[in-house]
Amino acid sequence: MRLAERQCEPCQVGGAPLTAAEAQKLARETPEWSVLEKAIERQFQFKDFREAVAFVNRVADAAEEQGHHPDISIYYSKVRLTLSTHKTGGLTENDFILAAKIDRLV
Amino acid sequence: MRLAERQCEPCQVGGAPLTAAEAQKLARETPEWSVLEKAIERQFQFKDFREAVAFVNRVADAAEEQGHHPDISIYYSKVRLTLSTHKTGGLTENDFILAAKIDRLV
Repeated sequence: MRLAERQCEPCQVGGAPLTAAEAQKLARETPEWSVLEKAIERQFQFKDFREAVAFVNRVADAAEEQGHHPDISIYYSKVRLTLSTHKTGGLTENDFILAAKIDRLV
Repeated sequence: MRLAERQCEPCQVGGAPLTAAEAQKLARETPEWSVLEKAIERQFQFKDFREAVAFVNRVADAAEEQGHHPDISIYYSKVRLTLSTHKTGGLTENDFILAAKIDRLV
């Protein structure tokens, strides 16, 4: 099943994060996201502040639905999202699932 | 007139930023904000992500009303706001006016 159609699983404290190879494999479905050591990140450009905030609200709804929350930064018309699974100290499938869902909100 | 009752003036490109002494004087009305060299900053703690996002929406409305926009970062239940007047490369009264208005939104 494609990532965007899957649902985030409850995060396990102390669960194992993905290996770099596993992360790279999932990242093929979220090519707009940069894979960092312990997070994935994407920047979005909008027409203005109002559109940026509207997007952040759509992201917030998806985050609440999945029980998984990105760090969000708004710089006027730019939004940067950073996804990481703090409970595992690294990346999990949840990060890529939410990333794929967010890609559909743009 | 108190800062919170004033309105932001259109920013002038190349206008002079406040001196450190002027900034410190205005900061007396916004004691929760840290005065940095070229910006002021405040962090807010909420019960959860949903409340943090609701606050960001109230901030966004105030920002649009004043035509002056803070940088906004959301880390789950924490929100960090940074105000600066990019056109002058430093702080202006507008930053303190918006800060004082935001203080009333909490």
